[in-house]
Amino acid sequence: MNKANVLLIGTGGVGTIVACGLVYNKKASVSVVVRSDYKKVKEHGWEIQSCDYGHLPAWKPDHIFPTVDAAAEVGVVYDYVVMTTKNLPDVVKPEDVAAPAITVGKTTVVLIQNGFDLGRPFIAKYPQNFCLSGVSHIGSHNHGGVISQTQHDKCLVSYFENPNLGKEEQEAKAKEFIDLYSNDKNSVSYFPDVKWYRYRKLVYNATLNTACALTRVDTGRLALSGTLEAVSIPAMHEVIKVAKADGVELPEDVINTVVHSDDGDWFKPSMLVDVEKGNPIELEVILGNLLVVARELKVETPTLDLLYHLLKATQFKLKEGKGLIDVPKERSISSKFYS
Amino acid sequence: MNKANVLLIGTGGVGTIVACGLVYNKKASVSVVVRSDYKKVKEHGWEIQSCDYGHLPAWKPDHIFPTVDAAAEVGVVYDYVVMTTKNLPDVVKPEDVAAPAITVGKTTVVLIQNGFDLGRPFIAKYPQNFCLSGVSHIGSHNHGGVISQTQHDKCLVSYFENPNLGKEEQEAKAKEFIDLYSNDKNSVSYFPDVKWYRYRKLVYNATLNTACALTRVDTGRLALSGTLEAVSIPAMHEVIKVAKADGVELPEDVINTVVHSDDGDWFKPSMLVDVEKGNPIELEVILGNLLVVARELKVETPTLDLLYHLLKATQFKLKEGKGLIDVPKERSISSKFYS
Repeated sequence: MNKANVLLIGTGGVGTIVACGLVYNKKASVSVVVRSDYKKVKEHGWEIQSCDYGHLPAWKPDHIFPTVDAAAEVGVVYDYVVMTTKNLPDVVKPEDVAAPAITVGKTTVVLIQNGFDLGRPFIAKYPQNFCLSGVSHIGSHNHGGVISQTQHDKCLVSYFENPNLGKEEQEAKAKEFIDLYSNDKNSVSYFPDVKWYRYRKLVYNATLNTACALTRVDTGRLALSGTLEAVSIPAMHEVIKVAKADGVELPEDVINTVVHSDDGDWFKPSMLVDVEKGNPIELEVILGNLLVVARELKVETPTLDLLYHLLKATQFKLKEGKGLIDVPKERSISSKFYS
Repeated sequence: MNKANVLLIGTGGVGTIVACGLVYNKKASVSVVVRSDYKKVKEHGWEIQSCDYGHLPAWKPDHIFPTVDAAAEVGVVYDYVVMTTKNLPDVVKPEDVAAPAITVGKTTVVLIQNGFDLGRPFIAKYPQNFCLSGVSHIGSHNHGGVISQTQHDKCLVSYFENPNLGKEEQEAKAKEFIDLYSNDKNSVSYFPDVKWYRYRKLVYNATLNTACALTRVDTGRLALSGTLEAVSIPAMHEVIKVAKADGVELPEDVINTVVHSDDGDWFKPSMLVDVEKGNPIELEVILGNLLVVARELKVETPTLDLLYHLLKATQFKLKEGKGLIDVPKERSISSKFYS
């Protein structure tokens, strides 16, 4: 049997360990795209200190490419393109990033990324391709080409439903990918209801993660200042309402569980960490995509709307800081009439 | 005729120039309370570089005290207590700060401070005293005891209506204070409708100042990111609605005027400057007091409410930074049930 051809895009802490798991299994030929550390990694590989795979002083996958174009130019038809980049469609659209490596009707896209309704732009662009979902619970970081994995690689795999393909085929495709990726070191399993799971995550991410990013306090201080109860909990009720309108019933005590999930920690959620580091936040996939669905289902979400529109200003500044937006030195005078 | 006894509390850039204007006029005996620079100022006075009064290398008022208690202990009955501190009732209540120097039924309080409905706690505590309002348009800063006044001292004086006193008496008292303070260098005038004027200022301060403080962008970037139109303009409509319910008609084009007031500048409003400096923000007097009135008048203000509750978290962190709030090193585990 020929090995499956897998191209992984995004070799941060998560992506590198996913690639590691695929290579360890020996069922796939694993290629990766490395942007910033290409030269170093091409020559010396990664140093990986992993709680799952031990100390790998110079780990390399089968092929290393500096760009997706370079990976496409070698003429391989990829069976899977696994995306483990941050998902920032307002900076660069992931379905465009992956495009050169995707063969229509052939390549399965696997999105191991944070966020909600991530499959929609891929299915719109590649209606004949499978699009899988991976929700990762790993703890792993890339510090300049040195990977430090401190929490076990646990990943729940499912599919973003593509109405052009049969459900059974899609489920089978998810299980085929699990077969490539799952091994005796990691915990990769099939989770049937991706929609339920991603709504469940939003109860935290769309409400606490966003409010902390905006106000720059951890979840503990958010509670002490009263903002948790005045803002985040009403926002959680809105997430639950959208889910319900979308046919997803979340557990009755979900709010209590979510609020208590950081008990005992002054915990800084991922968006706050990004804001503090000056990195663009995953605003569109964590909150923007939810609001698109809310509008389609005609559910009102005033608290989430306001969090979103306020975070647009935060995101503007983060993008400007990264040179992604250029603001002229002199502010021009607008003639617009505001009312 | 005896000179009026005036005690001024708060010798920042604004307060020092107000004191300067009173001294210049020679109609009052002017005492001031100086907290941080007391020793230096008591000995050497202030160096003032003023666009109104010129260069004063070692300016001193008639009396300098280190505390309000010290000013009260000398046995003088103050005709006026002028407050030019920042107004931060969630840190320290100004009506308590001034208390030792206030003689019931005698001392007129003059609040030359930012914010809305500032008279309420003074009138509640001192129902037989006059409470005047000063809205200052000066540009002046205190850099470690050196005062740099770059914009003309223009001040509009009126009264916060005290229902226990006659309107004519209150107007007369405002004009009496103007007579002490107004001189040939400054522009101090009577403005009949303090409520109108302070609502008018809120159209900017409760909406743009707050949103910029929260998102940490200037008003120009707030417009470019879309947050101005999505958040601040709806908030302006809410201010106008509260004003209307309170009997105050703002001009039809007020929103357009307010939005264009920073045209051509990447302008950072005062609350954003405070956030960047790590200073507590005037959240309660700029936004909290407005929401109290909105609740009394049963006007819904969902956008302003959310801005307020989010800024409570910002304020929490600012107060913690100044040692005004103590957060334990270990976060305790709450047993509260959230729903």
